[in-house]
Amino acid sequence: MSDKKEKQEPRQVIFNINKEKEFSDWFGEIVKVAELADIRYGVKGFTPFLPWSYMTMDIMFGLLEDALKRKKHLPMLFPTVIPEKNLTKEADHVEGFTPQVFWIKDIGSSEELEEKLALRPTSETAIYPMYSLWIRSWRDLPLKRYQRCSVFRSEIKSTRPFLRGREFLWIESHNVFATHEEALAQVMEDLETTKEVVSDEYELPVMIFRRTQWDKFPGGLNTYAADTLMPDGKVIQLPSTHDLGDNFAKAFDITFLDENNEYVHAWQTCYGPAVSRIFGAVISIHGDNKGLRLPFKLAPYQVVVIPIVRGKNAEEVVSYCKKVESKLAKAGIRVFLDDSDNTPGWKYNYWEMKGVPIRIEAGPCDIKEEKIVLFRRDTMKREPCELKNLKKRVYALGKEIDKTLRTFAESKFEGLVVDCVSLGEMEDALNKGKIARIPFCTTEMDGLECAEEIKERTGGEMRGTRMDVKESPEGVCPVCGRAAQEVAYVARSY
Amino acid sequence: MSDKKEKQEPRQVIFNINKEKEFSDWFGEIVKVAELADIRYGVKGFTPFLPWSYMTMDIMFGLLEDALKRKKHLPMLFPTVIPEKNLTKEADHVEGFTPQVFWIKDIGSSEELEEKLALRPTSETAIYPMYSLWIRSWRDLPLKRYQRCSVFRSEIKSTRPFLRGREFLWIESHNVFATHEEALAQVMEDLETTKEVVSDEYELPVMIFRRTQWDKFPGGLNTYAADTLMPDGKVIQLPSTHDLGDNFAKAFDITFLDENNEYVHAWQTCYGPAVSRIFGAVISIHGDNKGLRLPFKLAPYQVVVIPIVRGKNAEEVVSYCKKVESKLAKAGIRVFLDDSDNTPGWKYNYWEMKGVPIRIEAGPCDIKEEKIVLFRRDTMKREPCELKNLKKRVYALGKEIDKTLRTFAESKFEGLVVDCVSLGEMEDALNKGKIARIPFCTTEMDGLECAEEIKERTGGEMRGTRMDVKESPEGVCPVCGRAAQEVAYVARSY
Repeated sequence: MSDKKEKQEPRQVIFNINKEKEFSDWFGEIVKVAELADIRYGVKGFTPFLPWSYMTMDIMFGLLEDALKRKKHLPMLFPTVIPEKNLTKEADHVEGFTPQVFWIKDIGSSEELEEKLALRPTSETAIYPMYSLWIRSWRDLPLKRYQRCSVFRSEIKSTRPFLRGREFLWIESHNVFATHEEALAQVMEDLETTKEVVSDEYELPVMIFRRTQWDKFPGGLNTYAADTLMPDGKVIQLPSTHDLGDNFAKAFDITFLDENNEYVHAWQTCYGPAVSRIFGAVISIHGDNKGLRLPFKLAPYQVVVIPIVRGKNAEEVVSYCKKVESKLAKAGIRVFLDDSDNTPGWKYNYWEMKGVPIRIEAGPCDIKEEKIVLFRRDTMKREPCELKNLKKRVYALGKEIDKTLRTFAESKFEGLVVDCVSLGEMEDALNKGKIARIPFCTTEMDGLECAEEIKERTGGEMRGTRMDVKESPEGVCPVCGRAAQEVAYVARSY
Repeated sequence: MSDKKEKQEPRQVIFNINKEKEFSDWFGEIVKVAELADIRYGVKGFTPFLPWSYMTMDIMFGLLEDALKRKKHLPMLFPTVIPEKNLTKEADHVEGFTPQVFWIKDIGSSEELEEKLALRPTSETAIYPMYSLWIRSWRDLPLKRYQRCSVFRSEIKSTRPFLRGREFLWIESHNVFATHEEALAQVMEDLETTKEVVSDEYELPVMIFRRTQWDKFPGGLNTYAADTLMPDGKVIQLPSTHDLGDNFAKAFDITFLDENNEYVHAWQTCYGPAVSRIFGAVISIHGDNKGLRLPFKLAPYQVVVIPIVRGKNAEEVVSYCKKVESKLAKAGIRVFLDDSDNTPGWKYNYWEMKGVPIRIEAGPCDIKEEKIVLFRRDTMKREPCELKNLKKRVYALGKEIDKTLRTFAESKFEGLVVDCVSLGEMEDALNKGKIARIPFCTTEMDGLECAEEIKERTGGEMRGTRMDVKESPEGVCPVCGRAAQEVAYVARSY
């Protein structure tokens, strides 16, 4: 039987693709080889999320939810379906989302629904009619709620697991306030949450923008969003937060009795971190040519323990490894002992490709000396460690690894932004994978034509004006020649 | 301004409905008053789950997931939609589920899908085509996976929040084995998990049945399920687990290369705890005439702290309460300080109705004595406690409360089962809210007619034969008069 087992040993998984040069291949292959998603499901844009990605995303959701709960948001869950009449209540919103909606009309083999139901593309139109019933007086405000769920949008662009799917996983937070000032403070709090979670826990550096008027959330006043940089030089949007003003309150009749005993419309915001998409950015940005490199804070297994077994010492080594495993588990570390019958070499390759931050190797000689060998995935370096220092060293190493990944990601931002004053300079910059910073006429609707001209000539999209950096415009718009009112950023994007 | 605040103080929430006598009213009212779900969403059978129910269900999910992970199941997540062709692959399954399916055919305002998509009523037909691709050899087995998700079934019966909805929340675990013996062992493990979680953590006593052949999961060999008793004398199904045999493996071509290098069909099980439904049972069974009584293990807030503020001591008392709150939070207890400007009496009523297991009351006199008053929701009794013993006492009280709730629920099982040998006796027993235990011809398909006769005459449904108690049949079937091959249970049910 042991013969047959060896015969059937899985092939070596040696991942080796140049991420920077062949990013599209790298992404497609790592999704497959690391078993993150399966594109063979048979429905365009819908993919199963497999354990390794799901467990990572679950941890990512947990960190976001912790932050939201600290800031007094409560969780809830609305139905997946929305009646058609709700969707049509806010004119801009219906125009923005209806083309992307999946509709349910039939039940079973014959029955037809009285009213079409939409699979939620986002939940404003599901939630706000209920808010209209729930909110009565200033005592009910602020109302801060969120839900973790799937949303469904029939993307016209080509789909890609995680980065662009027709069903994706997100948190949507929907908040109601008595004044516009409080709503704007919530927008700032959301941007702070983005920094705390996406930058400091997912280790992704971001630039924060106010989007242009033609690129904002349909039905809102203003959209603020974080962008990060993918390895192919394109930017990708991470969480966005929207100042809805009182537009939706008017459309959905959300009023409250204020302290002067008068009914007035409420002010609203919503915030939508698309965790499955951010996961796509996390793996793309932190990965290297050998596969994934998951941050210690996000890895489903932070440590994998591998017994270096030679002949008759097998049992003794495995039991020593179990001791190591249980020591770490007790310290609250997510640890996995790989005691399968694959060779140590096979396991090294496999777990390196999967991006486990720390590997522990333990062989017969380590037992008497009460030590092990630590291997870190970020630098691919080994170091010895005494068992008595293990917990402390693993935590320290975890921090170091996350710092390395963050520093590496940040290094890509260096020299990234190039000042341009003409379409030619912009095209040049974008071709080199840079982001163009330009003086621009206006991000009000009046600037749309200039942005379209820029898009046509350079392939770059306008990301808006920076929120995290104060910038004053000088000069003229490179398209229309009017005096620049803003400093805008142009980049190729997802 | 303080005048106006007082004018607008919310009405007192004094819940008082006789749960045993008017259960249907009790349930409808508590769902509304405790803000668990809102039936005004506007789509039959779909209700938003509000923070108090969602947070409780999230804790319930967490306990189940912990148990599944301990038993080596890994989480994953499949798409919400299933292509029509998948659904039709297993003949009994398609017959059982298709009448209940919500179908998607259209996108946006004009586009039509090439193939209809079903909203998943359960995910066998989504998952198993992928299992067919993933499973190659005996080395890939056992495969133990689960997902936490919504499922959608167009119920014909009238809908009710939590207990019977068209969208409900569950975990579905889908497992593949090399032999039928291993699959059967998984069924036993699932029943063990039900006991560990549903009985020992949710505090619900259960009876475990093997269902009849006409009441099993469509397409499976056998269904095993836990039933518990609702306050109206009807039983309700909690988690069920299914021995699928190799039926689905044959329909979906799930084969593996065995250790003799031959391709053979795999054996499968699935397990489906419907957490939103179990939540409905939890609140119904543990609640009392004054509202909810949540088990300490499940309550979103295990302790609520209420400052007894009189005049100028307000600030001092609130800051003492904050100290109490932070002491408990550090000890890992879910605690909420209600420092709103409602009166202490209002808060007492409110949090009693919401079912928070322990209340802490602290006033000016308690500060110097370094003590507080503990109030337990289960018995409605108060006791003093010194601050230095607080953590220990709260944990001990939590255990006591859960034990009281469990004992109370178990007391309803006493004398519940009545032995009957005729249809008249059965009718009598069921009318008294009892469960009839009868000698029965057979739970194979051959017994269906007798069961239908019983249903018609007594209104009772056959729950199957006990798995958790060994029972030997004596006598004859009360309908057909054939020798009884089984001891079966008949009850009114949800």
